[in-house]
Amino acid sequence: MQMKKDNAETSGLRSWQHKLHALIYESETLAGKAFDIALLACILISIVVVMLDSVKPLHAKYGNVFLVLEWTFTILFTIEYTLRLICIRHPHKYVFSAFGIIDLLAIIPSYLSVIFVGAQSLLVLRALRLLRIFRIFRLVHFLSEMRFLSVAILNSLRKISIFILFVLSCVVILGSVIYLVEDDSSGFTSIPQSVYWAIVTITTVGYGDVAPVTTAGKLIASFIMLLGYGIIAVPTGIVTTEMALAVRHRRQGNNACPSCGREGHDHDADFCKYCGGKL
Amino acid sequence: MQMKKDNAETSGLRSWQHKLHALIYESETLAGKAFDIALLACILISIVVVMLDSVKPLHAKYGNVFLVLEWTFTILFTIEYTLRLICIRHPHKYVFSAFGIIDLLAIIPSYLSVIFVGAQSLLVLRALRLLRIFRIFRLVHFLSEMRFLSVAILNSLRKISIFILFVLSCVVILGSVIYLVEDDSSGFTSIPQSVYWAIVTITTVGYGDVAPVTTAGKLIASFIMLLGYGIIAVPTGIVTTEMALAVRHRRQGNNACPSCGREGHDHDADFCKYCGGKL
Amino acid sequence: MQMKKDNAETSGLRSWQHKLHALIYESETLAGKAFDIALLACILISIVVVMLDSVKPLHAKYGNVFLVLEWTFTILFTIEYTLRLICIRHPHKYVFSAFGIIDLLAIIPSYLSVIFVGAQSLLVLRALRLLRIFRIFRLVHFLSEMRFLSVAILNSLRKISIFILFVLSCVVILGSVIYLVEDDSSGFTSIPQSVYWAIVTITTVGYGDVAPVTTAGKLIASFIMLLGYGIIAVPTGIVTTEMALAVRHRRQGNNACPSCGREGHDHDADFCKYCGGKL
Amino acid sequence: MQMKKDNAETSGLRSWQHKLHALIYESETLAGKAFDIALLACILISIVVVMLDSVKPLHAKYGNVFLVLEWTFTILFTIEYTLRLICIRHPHKYVFSAFGIIDLLAIIPSYLSVIFVGAQSLLVLRALRLLRIFRIFRLVHFLSEMRFLSVAILNSLRKISIFILFVLSCVVILGSVIYLVEDDSSGFTSIPQSVYWAIVTITTVGYGDVAPVTTAGKLIASFIMLLGYGIIAVPTGIVTTEMALAVRHRRQGNNACPSCGREGHDHDADFCKYCGGKL
Repeated sequence: MQMKKDNAETSGLRSWQHKLHALIYESETLAGKAFDIALLACILISIVVVMLDSVKPLHAKYGNVFLVLEWTFTILFTIEYTLRLICIRHPHKYVFSAFGIIDLLAIIPSYLSVIFVGAQSLLVLRALRLLRIFRIFRLVHFLSEMRFLSVAILNSLRKISIFILFVLSCVVILGSVIYLVEDDSSGFTSIPQSVYWAIVTITTVGYGDVAPVTTAGKLIASFIMLLGYGIIAVPTGIVTTEMALAVRHRRQGNNACPSCGREGHDHDADFCKYCGGKL
Repeated sequence: MQMKKDNAETSGLRSWQHKLHALIYESETLAGKAFDIALLACILISIVVVMLDSVKPLHAKYGNVFLVLEWTFTILFTIEYTLRLICIRHPHKYVFSAFGIIDLLAIIPSYLSVIFVGAQSLLVLRALRLLRIFRIFRLVHFLSEMRFLSVAILNSLRKISIFILFVLSCVVILGSVIYLVEDDSSGFTSIPQSVYWAIVTITTVGYGDVAPVTTAGKLIASFIMLLGYGIIAVPTGIVTTEMALAVRHRRQGNNACPSCGREGHDHDADFCKYCGGKL
Repeated sequence: MQMKKDNAETSGLRSWQHKLHALIYESETLAGKAFDIALLACILISIVVVMLDSVKPLHAKYGNVFLVLEWTFTILFTIEYTLRLICIRHPHKYVFSAFGIIDLLAIIPSYLSVIFVGAQSLLVLRALRLLRIFRIFRLVHFLSEMRFLSVAILNSLRKISIFILFVLSCVVILGSVIYLVEDDSSGFTSIPQSVYWAIVTITTVGYGDVAPVTTAGKLIASFIMLLGYGIIAVPTGIVTTEMALAVRHRRQGNNACPSCGREGHDHDADFCKYCGGKL
Repeated sequence: MQMKKDNAETSGLRSWQHKLHALIYESETLAGKAFDIALLACILISIVVVMLDSVKPLHAKYGNVFLVLEWTFTILFTIEYTLRLICIRHPHKYVFSAFGIIDLLAIIPSYLSVIFVGAQSLLVLRALRLLRIFRIFRLVHFLSEMRFLSVAILNSLRKISIFILFVLSCVVILGSVIYLVEDDSSGFTSIPQSVYWAIVTITTVGYGDVAPVTTAGKLIASFIMLLGYGIIAVPTGIVTTEMALAVRHRRQGNNACPSCGREGHDHDADFCKYCGGKL
């Protein structure tokens, strides 16, 4: 199956394009694996460079080194982007895919920074290059674990959004209650501010920059904490149930027995466990 | 089934009432969907207005705009409430339903604010309007996910209350122990205050406004933290188990016995477990 | 079965003792239920009194009221304890049971406070009365949910202790690492202090009274946080698995089919789901 | 099986070596159990001594006592290490096993501290002795719970690493976003510092030493908190699913097929799923 798909993707390409395609897009060959690891190293180092460049003392000292490194990586990523384009049959498919967009976002900020030289916008562009980190996931994309996880999480997404909606509703109500109860001087100066505090509390983060001081406020805070401590069970239950279903699904194909027609066999079963007939 | 119920609810109504009923209460038609989305937008904007109005600088600047918007929404919601009443056969059923009460609570505060003009009571009334947020759930009420979640959560509610009762008992005992151990000067001034601290700690919120300073106090605090970190497994386990049961129930539910009509058979059952008839 | 047990417990008792036993120990009759609710109210009010008495301003103002209330409850609980003793056949069994000890601990502190009049010991004795809160659980003891929960939790206790042992080992090692890395001035003054900080961090409590300031310290702290955030899955997984087993166990008795000998029938099954034979 | 393995390990040893082997490596005999408990006590006391020695006032007062105790334990552990070596047939196997390395690391720091007398390196060596705590796990190594737990956790490790990778990516992006949004004066002085804050927030630790002050910053912080609160479900789901699989595996494992000898059949299987033979 995989091979057929590759053929479809690469048919009509010349020989060197075939080889390049195998090098860049596939990781079965030794060269393909080496390419992946080199790319991973480049991405990680370029991210560290962008992060360290934001530390003022380091920028003052090594600013030039960082600039050279940054341009080196930008050029390397530009070459890689071009190669990806020329060794595939339908380049537009790649360009508009999620990874294609991230790959582009990883290189354009550096070029744009030449045009727009304002300090703040430059800062934004620099930070944008950190999106490169998501390129890592291309390299783990083929892992079956990754696919398994994302299926289970996508299945639970609708249920979890309803849960988050419920949490947000609670937080709006409880935040406005504590706003009424607590004094302005203790930090609950407005409903949005109190709602922010309620989110900090219900998620059990608890910065402590704002904390209730009145008895009524502490009672409400205790209620919010216990609520947050209890309802974390809900997303956990949702995801666990979905994963258990995904596991069961993977273990049991739709392989009904041809003799007795019953399903629910393990994926490694050769004979029906109910009637002993050949599957 | 749904259709029959609708007929029962709307029988004896005139044609325009039928149409209105479909528009307001149902969301299968295009007009019904548009109505739902418009209503959702109104609810969300009116909540944002109430929240922003509590920010003093914004109130000083845009107080009048907020007042106009608030009255606009109040009148819109009043019209909607009236329409809901006149296109249903048994209005009293709607009025005393959970959503009916929330719908009423969403409009009366504004009218009451004209009568009671005291600053503090006005504040409470304003906040009361935030209850509108729960109206959102009417719009997602028909989602099967919502029903699924609430069934599982309701089933676990009794077990979770026993768990919360246990946590509260621990917190009372451990709070009074730390009150005996710690000095007043470090913030543990009374047993209720220490119990509040124990709740902050066992739920892993940890504001840090009160924290133990003596060695014995830190030992007890460590114990409370590890306890809280460990027992969060209990509500999670309860909800997950209930959800797994709900999933199994949903998967199994459709194979009623042809002899006795009872449901709930395992997917690998050949004979009815209640009457022994062939399935 | 329950009736037989009662007969065994109450055989050889006179008629009024039988009635008293039913009133105090059972909650099936209306009088028994009323007794339970009255007792629950007494326990809760007496706990609130002890807690409020520790608040200095309230003690100064209502100290005498609290004293009178406390002695009222002490006398009531003493009468109840005596009644429990005289209407049971083997009083020593009750005296040395967990609830018997708690019942005794709920009354002796008040009497001891007359003898030992030192301020600090008095304080300890007062707090000891809060143990009454565990008396509440006697009243929910008969709930099947309670039994279900405690079975699952007891089964997971050994696994969870190994987990806690592992967490404590990590915390000792990581705490001493951060002690080496961080400066004394930022609060990491000794290994025990640093281990305490590591517990605060790994359990995601995060008071913030001590926090790393060096880059190396922050890296280690980040590692501890992510570790704590990830391994909370372990106790949760343990308890959930045990609960799922407990649920399955409850649903499936050891009821093998007399015809085909197969097990795994639901607890409400009358006929074998495999061969259709009567169970 | 166990006996055979022991024979293989101890064959070619003299009689006193056999007895020593049983004493040190096995815990079935009374003497073996006593040895284990004595060792456990030594390990725990030596760890407490190292920890207390780091507390400055205690070091000043009891420094000499700690030194004597430390050398006593070092000599005891050295004797134990030697005994372990001489009563086993392949000493190199033990030396290079995980526990062998920890056992060696538990004694060499004390000897090295005689050679290197610099204050800081001495500190590191002292802390290194705390690794002894992991020796405890040798004593619980034989518990089936321990093995069960580690199997489930090892199976979930790959999935959890992908999850941690995802969390780290989010934290890099969200940390740099808040760095752009928040002012330097509120503590977000560089991207690494902001990423550290994002880790503190997403893991719901929340020290509060750095907290957002602008409205945009608080909105982003709220998002990170809710994200962290929601995605904790993922590792929990992974571990729970793996544990459930491990439990099922353990429950099923004992029904080998009489025809082909393969295991892993469902409890309701009548025929071998591999060869079709009757079970």
